[in-house]
Amino acid sequence: MFRRTITGFSNPTVKFVRSLRDKKHRRRERKFLAEGLRLLTDAREGGRLPEILLMAQGREGHPLLDELEQATASAGGDVIEVPVDILAKITGKDNPQAVAGVFAEWDTSLATITREAAPLWLVAQAMRDPGNLGTMLRTADAVGAGGLILLDDCVDPFSVEAVRASMGAIFTQHLAQARWDEFLPWLRGGAGQLVAASLREAVPYRGAPYAAPCFVMVGNESRGLPEDYELACDLRVTMPMKGRADSLNAAVAGAVLAYEVLASLEG
Amino acid sequence: MFRRTITGFSNPTVKFVRSLRDKKHRRRERKFLAEGLRLLTDAREGGRLPEILLMAQGREGHPLLDELEQATASAGGDVIEVPVDILAKITGKDNPQAVAGVFAEWDTSLATITREAAPLWLVAQAMRDPGNLGTMLRTADAVGAGGLILLDDCVDPFSVEAVRASMGAIFTQHLAQARWDEFLPWLRGGAGQLVAASLREAVPYRGAPYAAPCFVMVGNESRGLPEDYELACDLRVTMPMKGRADSLNAAVAGAVLAYEVLASLEG
Repeated sequence: MFRRTITGFSNPTVKFVRSLRDKKHRRRERKFLAEGLRLLTDAREGGRLPEILLMAQGREGHPLLDELEQATASAGGDVIEVPVDILAKITGKDNPQAVAGVFAEWDTSLATITREAAPLWLVAQAMRDPGNLGTMLRTADAVGAGGLILLDDCVDPFSVEAVRASMGAIFTQHLAQARWDEFLPWLRGGAGQLVAASLREAVPYRGAPYAAPCFVMVGNESRGLPEDYELACDLRVTMPMKGRADSLNAAVAGAVLAYEVLASLEG
Repeated sequence: MFRRTITGFSNPTVKFVRSLRDKKHRRRERKFLAEGLRLLTDAREGGRLPEILLMAQGREGHPLLDELEQATASAGGDVIEVPVDILAKITGKDNPQAVAGVFAEWDTSLATITREAAPLWLVAQAMRDPGNLGTMLRTADAVGAGGLILLDDCVDPFSVEAVRASMGAIFTQHLAQARWDEFLPWLRGGAGQLVAASLREAVPYRGAPYAAPCFVMVGNESRGLPEDYELACDLRVTMPMKGRADSLNAAVAGAVLAYEVLASLEG
């Protein structure tokens, strides 16, 4: 098996990989960076192999790492060993994980989604926090959703932070990105119930008449959903707000609602 | 009303306030920093006034800001006007909010908690992410919990990130900090059901026999709860995990469980 070693910070491959921490470069290259054996194993099991696999010199051996290396090399990927300090520079961490990979982004158009494939889908509109976005992907996996649909100007789902927060779900959940005026006609072109938490003519979220395929939508962290988005919903539900605040963290609201939909559809 | 102006970066008060972004200094001074008119208004309404109120020169006027300034000055607080670039330096943001305040920390011992005051309480063990911790406080407010109890080595609840993520709930929710070997005897010294999500001899979280006052506990983001903590619970519950992962984000798990407890206790 061919494995090369790079020891210089100024090596073009090192510079290239490092540049992927920056959104501008990810956009141009359509590639992104994921770190850690667990995440990369999730990727492999989800059918995604890195184009470049970086392994730290002096790392501890692991059967899963061996499998990853073999699979990457067999698929024609570039397997590279680097000193720990270069990996630290690339990942921006003092204590980098022993392995990182560069992946090609994939098609995230709505056309890739088969709505009947799952009883529910999560939808996030203008979500700005990468931790929230990754958490939504992780929740989608947990509730057996088909995936996550990102509307309008969301944070980059392929950012290092979002990938990390997804705990591997970025590789296993369907991910689509669309504008609202593209999403709504697509949704109305087939079966699908659009649901959002709202204060406008809403029914209690417990026991609401959810129907599959159910699209659970949450809005921007600061502004919530635009009014016309809420009015376009088939079902608006309220969750108890017993305290002073009138809203939950967006990823939390999506999860509480998604678990309720799951229980309702399975009950 | 007395309001002073500071224009120099090297002013001792500016340096002091800025130092509170660092945990070490917060520990020593027992003071913390909160930013934004909304947060500071939540604080005022929750009975907490800043010892130092910083306002940006050239800010837009606002009735709530006037009230805040008056209340702070009446309580003997220090009201200071600073150029925007100093406020940016203090808060570490390019676009700082127009107002920030320095607050004295308060007593967070278990003795401050009256368990009968609320039907449920949230408990977080060794929570490391300030966003998660703040989100737990926000959720506690929303579900009408009494507050949040932090066990063992949690991230500082008075960090700027945690305070921000709490959306003001840091000022209105009860907050306690304790070690497990202090918490458990305290809990057993009165009524209280300890509940955690677990895979060990657990019952489904829907319809589980929750009882007030119910203490909903979540564990560390990476390791979950220690086994003996789980075994000490009165009730262990499982949530559906339909996908590849075996866990949720800690703040999400706590929220889904807390909303279930709320529905159960109210139903």
